[in-house]
Amino acid sequence: MNQNFRDTLESFENQFPDRDYIIEIFCPEFTSVCPKTGQPDFGSLTFRYVPDKTCVELKSLKLYLHQFRNEGIFYEHVTNAILDDFVSVVTPRRATLIAKFTPRGGISSVIEVNYEK
Amino acid sequence: MNQNFRDTLESFENQFPDRDYIIEIFCPEFTSVCPKTGQPDFGSLTFRYVPDKTCVELKSLKLYLHQFRNEGIFYEHVTNAILDDFVSVVTPRRATLIAKFTPRGGISSVIEVNYEK
Amino acid sequence: MNQNFRDTLESFENQFPDRDYIIEIFCPEFTSVCPKTGQPDFGSLTFRYVPDKTCVELKSLKLYLHQFRNEGIFYEHVTNAILDDFVSVVTPRRATLIAKFTPRGGISSVIEVNYEK
Amino acid sequence: MNQNFRDTLESFENQFPDRDYIIEIFCPEFTSVCPKTGQPDFGSLTFRYVPDKTCVELKSLKLYLHQFRNEGIFYEHVTNAILDDFVSVVTPRRATLIAKFTPRGGISSVIEVNYEK
Amino acid sequence: MNQNFRDTLESFENQFPDRDYIIEIFCPEFTSVCPKTGQPDFGSLTFRYVPDKTCVELKSLKLYLHQFRNEGIFYEHVTNAILDDFVSVVTPRRATLIAKFTPRGGISSVIEVNYEK
Amino acid sequence: MNQNFRDTLESFENQFPDRDYIIEIFCPEFTSVCPKTGQPDFGSLTFRYVPDKTCVELKSLKLYLHQFRNEGIFYEHVTNAILDDFVSVVTPRRATLIAKFTPRGGISSVIEVNYEK
Amino acid sequence: MNQNFRDTLESFENQFPDRDYIIEIFCPEFTSVCPKTGQPDFGSLTFRYVPDKTCVELKSLKLYLHQFRNEGIFYEHVTNAILDDFVSVVTPRRATLIAKFTPRGGISSVIEVNYEK
Amino acid sequence: MNQNFRDTLESFENQFPDRDYIIEIFCPEFTSVCPKTGQPDFGSLTFRYVPDKTCVELKSLKLYLHQFRNEGIFYEHVTNAILDDFVSVVTPRRATLIAKFTPRGGISSVIEVNYEK
Amino acid sequence: MNQNFRDTLESFENQFPDRDYIIEIFCPEFTSVCPKTGQPDFGSLTFRYVPDKTCVELKSLKLYLHQFRNEGIFYEHVTNAILDDFVSVVTPRRATLIAKFTPRGGISSVIEVNYEK
Amino acid sequence: MNQNFRDTLESFENQFPDRDYIIEIFCPEFTSVCPKTGQPDFGSLTFRYVPDKTCVELKSLKLYLHQFRNEGIFYEHVTNAILDDFVSVVTPRRATLIAKFTPRGGISSVIEVNYEK
Repeated sequence: MNQNFRDTLESFENQFPDRDYIIEIFCPEFTSVCPKTGQPDFGSLTFRYVPDKTCVELKSLKLYLHQFRNEGIFYEHVTNAILDDFVSVVTPRRATLIAKFTPRGGISSVIEVNYEK
Repeated sequence: MNQNFRDTLESFENQFPDRDYIIEIFCPEFTSVCPKTGQPDFGSLTFRYVPDKTCVELKSLKLYLHQFRNEGIFYEHVTNAILDDFVSVVTPRRATLIAKFTPRGGISSVIEVNYEK
Repeated sequence: MNQNFRDTLESFENQFPDRDYIIEIFCPEFTSVCPKTGQPDFGSLTFRYVPDKTCVELKSLKLYLHQFRNEGIFYEHVTNAILDDFVSVVTPRRATLIAKFTPRGGISSVIEVNYEK
Repeated sequence: MNQNFRDTLESFENQFPDRDYIIEIFCPEFTSVCPKTGQPDFGSLTFRYVPDKTCVELKSLKLYLHQFRNEGIFYEHVTNAILDDFVSVVTPRRATLIAKFTPRGGISSVIEVNYEK
Repeated sequence: MNQNFRDTLESFENQFPDRDYIIEIFCPEFTSVCPKTGQPDFGSLTFRYVPDKTCVELKSLKLYLHQFRNEGIFYEHVTNAILDDFVSVVTPRRATLIAKFTPRGGISSVIEVNYEK
Repeated sequence: MNQNFRDTLESFENQFPDRDYIIEIFCPEFTSVCPKTGQPDFGSLTFRYVPDKTCVELKSLKLYLHQFRNEGIFYEHVTNAILDDFVSVVTPRRATLIAKFTPRGGISSVIEVNYEK
Repeated sequence: MNQNFRDTLESFENQFPDRDYIIEIFCPEFTSVCPKTGQPDFGSLTFRYVPDKTCVELKSLKLYLHQFRNEGIFYEHVTNAILDDFVSVVTPRRATLIAKFTPRGGISSVIEVNYEK
Repeated sequence: MNQNFRDTLESFENQFPDRDYIIEIFCPEFTSVCPKTGQPDFGSLTFRYVPDKTCVELKSLKLYLHQFRNEGIFYEHVTNAILDDFVSVVTPRRATLIAKFTPRGGISSVIEVNYEK
Repeated sequence: MNQNFRDTLESFENQFPDRDYIIEIFCPEFTSVCPKTGQPDFGSLTFRYVPDKTCVELKSLKLYLHQFRNEGIFYEHVTNAILDDFVSVVTPRRATLIAKFTPRGGISSVIEVNYEK
Repeated sequence: MNQNFRDTLESFENQFPDRDYIIEIFCPEFTSVCPKTGQPDFGSLTFRYVPDKTCVELKSLKLYLHQFRNEGIFYEHVTNAILDDFVSVVTPRRATLIAKFTPRGGISSVIEVNYEK
């Protein structure tokens, strides 16, 4: 996975930093490529976080995720890596990423990763 | 956002102030305008609160929310601001506002804000 | 609201008083009248309680609820008043009443009231 | 209703005019204003048509529909008028418009209008 | 059933009489009384009609249906009688009324009546 | 199957014999006994008919169906026999009976029988 | 209720007694008789238990439950009595029985009983 | 596919041969093996037929279908072959077989085959 | 769109050419690129056809569809072009392709194209 | 049950061992054989675990589960045995296995087994 991907991700100032509140973002159109078979993988991503000083800018999140379109990367890896990028740019107080992948060979997977400051 | 919006919001006397009980109000027809694109946004609002001395008057809540129809305002801002107005007029013991917005560019958002006296 | 309504409510002896267990009763056909507009309101009531010495008799509960058919009464009031009647006749260890009302002006309401001995 | 609304609607050349095929477009975020009460109405529009020489351009359809946002107009009128505008600009072989409006006073409406060349 | 009920029903001029189109109206909050047991019945009514010179006015339809609230009348009778009233006031080209009643004794009923000019 | 079962079934006069209309009756609580294994069978019955001079009386239909509770009878037989009883007592213009039985050994069955005068 | 019913219930040796694990058994085809009206009642039973030395044998559970088919017994009684029989034969570490009964007079009931060693 | 499979299938006499009626049988637990990959395939089969002189015996149908458990056979082949076996043993007036297979590589298939005497 | 795409599509011999039967293939993981915005589009494709001498090979269909992953092409164009490729390689007796695309700007589209020999 | 089954199961290195995260794997196509009747059983398995040094390799899990296809084994046994195999090969920090089996004789079962290091 390209280390420059996270440069695409942008944030904007949280106008309500004194209050803990939750932002949930649902991205049902995630696709990457299986590094073993070269076949496309499809899934949905759900981000759930408590912003600190900044919130994620939605359009930049969309463009950031599009970069994985032709990237060969495993389920476990991509989920952990995306949360790491998210945390490094948005620096939330808490964050969860849930990635649900569609069935392959009759088996489907969900990866859930948490971050706490 | 116009600071006079909250003047529209009315409350009436809670007849059971000795008991903590929960009122949940679901408003699936919320619409405002994206300040960046000028395009309309659509969402649903769920208020869940424990009343103290007063309850929110439903018709005034409807009229209050209609004021946002042509207002340019971001998701995070409008959700926090509406809860602030609600708390300032109704003065509940506890309150939660959950705002779910419809997808834009394949991405949808939910903002959840809590208030505790 | 007529104070004699609760006379209709009957209970029978709980045969298992040594054990805490839960009875949930779902009444999807509740209707009363809005005291402001004179228009009918519709909703569902869910009772969930732990019986002490007695259980509520279901037919009497049905007849008790039918009395509200032409009664002008607000959502918050009717929910609290019905739980009070229920508690006074059935004297449960714990009880919850959840009342869900159908949308008016695009807005729907749920009232949840709890009682603990 | 403003007669210039239809100027916003644009079409593009159908590249497969030799074949009858069906295009269905679902617009769940339609809103206008009730001319009697001044209160907003909400609904979804489903267009289903067989294109002739042109297809409707989706972004222009979105902008066209946004013009009704502050327009006072009845359900039956707006549905017929939108189909007329659609037919006059896109000139399809056949077209159906189904408009579903959310409940008011416990009653909801669907209007279905058909056009055949 | 009181013969004056239909006086409550009002219509307004159909602005598109040259075109056959369909209006469907869903009334999920219908209630009357069983003439045998005196117990309330609950159901939903779906009107589906092609207007001729007039359309039904929705508020008057609501008030018309509320009149059955304390009326003792059988399922088959009330469905046929309401369609007759509807046809006599609105004079549609075609009309269907589907009435679905909630279960009694574990059995539920649907009555479907059609009218063709 | 006992030939006297049909004596339980009652009808009442159809007050709208000049009009073809449809009555659908859903009985989700049907049970009989498998004649081979002696184990209970469970299913739902849907009657759909156009009445002629009479309609079926619902309470008598309920009691009629309860008679099968301890009767040993095959799916195909019971469905045809019940429709025959229904037709002989109610003499409808048209009638359909759809019987859906719950799975046994991972296989479930639906029997649909039609009658036309 | 016949005290010999529990003799039908059988258990077999739990092969994993060193580990607390959960067995949930869903029986959607329970039927008994209302002792007041003589009419059949229908419901579903969900057993959820942690086995100790034995597990319930499923075929014997089915035969045990069939014995209630013509037994006149109230909802609250039958649920408590079945859990008592289950505990006395299977001697689980913990057990819950949830019984959901279908609507009568527009009202449906759920009884939930727990047992802890 | 073994030609002796159909010997397992049994029928019994149709007691209502004078009437055209429909029997639908749903088998959600079908499994065979992909002849190319050796991996198991899973699907559901729906038979819908009008019996002539005989009906299919359900237990024999279950045993017949179990024979495919370790058989290597393609979707299109197995569906056509099973309908042929069914028709040859049961000799229905009309029959349809719908086979739905679970997704492989993100793609799922349904095969629908009809037979008319 | 690259004219060589169809070379990827393969067929195999239909073993039951004497019988008209239906094959439906559901591909929920289709993605291409919007030629105007460069942003990815997502949708599902449903093929429904009656084979003549050949059936489509599913793995080749999957690989064929993957070629559109980075192709800039409009909804109407891609649907018609895929059906043309399908017909040219598989030469079915009849074929339908239904393409459902996810919402953009709150609007979603379905394109349905038919082919008859 | 063959003790060599677990040899099929493979794992790969967890690249994020410093973080507790959850992997959920859903296998809806599990089948084994009832040791008493010889008839096939069908069910779904849900694994939910926190990996330590390794993650389970999905293709090997599929092949591992296929081995049970012709194995005679009880519900409670197979669920516990599969979790034991999983834990012995993957050595997770925590793991849960939930096995849901389809109805037999109108009764369905769920077995839930937990492992904590």
